[in-house]
Amino acid sequence: MGASDVSTARPLGVGLLGLGVVGSAVAAGLMAGRGELAGEGARPLVLRKALVRDLRRKRTVDLDPGVLTTDPAAVLDDPSVDVVVEVMGGEQPAFDYISRAIRGGKHVVTANKEVLCKRGDELFTLAAEHGVRLLHEASVGGGIPIVGPLSSDLLANRIESIRAIINGTTNYILTKMAAQGAGFDQVLEEAKKLGYAEADPTSDVDGWDAAYKIAVLARVAFGVSVPLDAVHREGIRGLEAQEFRYAATLGYTIKLLAVARREQGGLLVRVHPALIPSSVPMAKVDGVLNVVEVEGDLVGPLWLQGRGAGPDATASAVLGDLLRIARGAEIRKNVAAARSADRLKLVSIDDHECKYYFRLVCKDRPGVLAQIAGILGKLQISIASVIQMDANAERGEADLVIMTHPSLERNVQKAVREIAALQVVARVASVLRVEAY
Amino acid sequence: MGASDVSTARPLGVGLLGLGVVGSAVAAGLMAGRGELAGEGARPLVLRKALVRDLRRKRTVDLDPGVLTTDPAAVLDDPSVDVVVEVMGGEQPAFDYISRAIRGGKHVVTANKEVLCKRGDELFTLAAEHGVRLLHEASVGGGIPIVGPLSSDLLANRIESIRAIINGTTNYILTKMAAQGAGFDQVLEEAKKLGYAEADPTSDVDGWDAAYKIAVLARVAFGVSVPLDAVHREGIRGLEAQEFRYAATLGYTIKLLAVARREQGGLLVRVHPALIPSSVPMAKVDGVLNVVEVEGDLVGPLWLQGRGAGPDATASAVLGDLLRIARGAEIRKNVAAARSADRLKLVSIDDHECKYYFRLVCKDRPGVLAQIAGILGKLQISIASVIQMDANAERGEADLVIMTHPSLERNVQKAVREIAALQVVARVASVLRVEAY
Repeated sequence: MGASDVSTARPLGVGLLGLGVVGSAVAAGLMAGRGELAGEGARPLVLRKALVRDLRRKRTVDLDPGVLTTDPAAVLDDPSVDVVVEVMGGEQPAFDYISRAIRGGKHVVTANKEVLCKRGDELFTLAAEHGVRLLHEASVGGGIPIVGPLSSDLLANRIESIRAIINGTTNYILTKMAAQGAGFDQVLEEAKKLGYAEADPTSDVDGWDAAYKIAVLARVAFGVSVPLDAVHREGIRGLEAQEFRYAATLGYTIKLLAVARREQGGLLVRVHPALIPSSVPMAKVDGVLNVVEVEGDLVGPLWLQGRGAGPDATASAVLGDLLRIARGAEIRKNVAAARSADRLKLVSIDDHECKYYFRLVCKDRPGVLAQIAGILGKLQISIASVIQMDANAERGEADLVIMTHPSLERNVQKAVREIAALQVVARVASVLRVEAY
Repeated sequence: MGASDVSTARPLGVGLLGLGVVGSAVAAGLMAGRGELAGEGARPLVLRKALVRDLRRKRTVDLDPGVLTTDPAAVLDDPSVDVVVEVMGGEQPAFDYISRAIRGGKHVVTANKEVLCKRGDELFTLAAEHGVRLLHEASVGGGIPIVGPLSSDLLANRIESIRAIINGTTNYILTKMAAQGAGFDQVLEEAKKLGYAEADPTSDVDGWDAAYKIAVLARVAFGVSVPLDAVHREGIRGLEAQEFRYAATLGYTIKLLAVARREQGGLLVRVHPALIPSSVPMAKVDGVLNVVEVEGDLVGPLWLQGRGAGPDATASAVLGDLLRIARGAEIRKNVAAARSADRLKLVSIDDHECKYYFRLVCKDRPGVLAQIAGILGKLQISIASVIQMDANAERGEADLVIMTHPSLERNVQKAVREIAALQVVARVASVLRVEAY
């Protein structure tokens, strides 16, 4: 169903792909009449079909048995379904289902950052060709309004940067590591038990989820397509308990940041753990909270914070998108097209400049610092402070924590390789960027 | 120009009412091509007319002399003007101009909280009758996206409460009073010199501006019309330097809050200085920053923070609304209509319950506390703590600071009258609500 008929009052049929916790919350919202909140003149939303794996599974939401189906075609090819809501996640079969829905003239609402990151170019082009909407507020930041504001309220701005904590699992783990002085593995196990981390935590702890999300936001904010391999991505798996203690001593907190910022005449998109000053508000965004900091040239700095996950928060965003369609909101253009006028190039982190934190486990003997300082100096990396901490006398080792002045990433990487090769250095335990505030 | 023609590609003519700092920033944005950001297929925005007081005044933005006019009719009756932007402020003549524009089939974008608070019912009804949009993102919180998210992204939520710091002038003054231990009059003079307070600061310091804004937000969030006299309003003029010191000692910060919250089976809308725990994030929103905290039943707590004023931030919101219209966004219904289904009643603060902070200047003699405690006890006001501070030995007076357990407003007001009449009480220096977090 295209744009032309959204003004009539007949119901807008919804087909759900996925009836897990998020899908059930969306269905519950529709059953509770939230689909009529678009008001008089808008099309009321009616749930027509829901794709499930097992028809007999006990569900939290009470649906007419005729609604449930195990056959994707029963959702995707049903002419009474005007909008398909995809809350299955993953690239496939989500991509196939979404494209088939679009080809069938159906609008799509999705919470799936992975498919949007990996196949967004194809999907948005397809949606434009077929004159349907592809909405995805739920794909980033749970219920925090961010895709909507970037697409609409803030559209007059040239966006300078987006800096966010957008993965609740890693933020929970980092918060606990900092508070308890505990190691990564221990906190991860706790997080799994509490349901804050999945059995296979790779997508979260290795930064994939945050990378998908910042790529999705960059498309909306900067009108640029960001392939996954153009996102500089580091996870939190390698962080050791000492880092949190040393960082705190130096006045910093460690967070997994997702950043898309104009620099070097282009756009740098990066996900990595970073030291941020403990005094700035972002240092206090703890646990599973998400925050997105947007800097626009007119609006200045904006701060949008809330629950980044959870069935109800995600359903809030999905239902908001459905109501947008029910009200016949504009379908002509994806905002990315409007933003793309300045044709931003994606740039590499190699030319990024920031302060760095190194922790080197060194042999506790004279002359160590001279050798390290020699390498740094040669590569134009200027030392701001050096602290020797926690000497492990038994092994004859000491932790050397070095903070640098702003330095060039490519030089830092080179320095790290040279330092690691020094005989007096047992290992380079940690190299972390210090985020500028 | 009604809804039917927004899909054509001919320009959308903009008429500006007011070319002060905000109007000039909007004009500059249009001249710089920001009106084309809605993208392909949308109507480019073109500035046609701007109403000014003085044609010869030197301006920061370079406009064709044919654009400027001192005649309102040249804007309001120009058939090439499709959207009127009203950035004059005040109830009149803004109300007359806006209604005339709407009657002429023009969309309206306004930053004017006063006219929306006082005459919103008439204006929104008129806009619905004429099939045009009346958009007002800029009326609250500068460039912070809040009207848009409440109208659209968060529409599926039942909003439970909105709690905000939405007046930069008072927040600046309170921040300075707390930091410097300075008195109100002194800080107000400083704020005037720095341009943070107007020559006549009444609208800000007496809470009118915040009252207009929370009434405007309540309409969007709860679908309820809030007459100005239904807003419980207290300003900050009466606050003395001691309060900040005592509040800090007790672990609190004083902020001017604007709150609309469901309680007593209805909606209570209130603006008043309040003690808030120094540990909560809102206590740290300092200076001219604004924050709006929204609690939705699905999304949970949301936090939206940014610059609440300034020409560019306000222009960001005005231009965002213009681009919405340029893209042909839905014009059928005002969201308030959709929200109004639960027909919330406005309730009085008399039945509000919270903790209270009293400062009583008492005669320093035995039996004082017994008399005060007697009155409080009789009125079911339970004392949480009593501290005698800063005795003024010369006058034989002492400051008695009493914190209560949650108590009923009507009882507190009665108690205050009885306490003030006591011979042993020189004066009731302060009665402040403690906001629950």
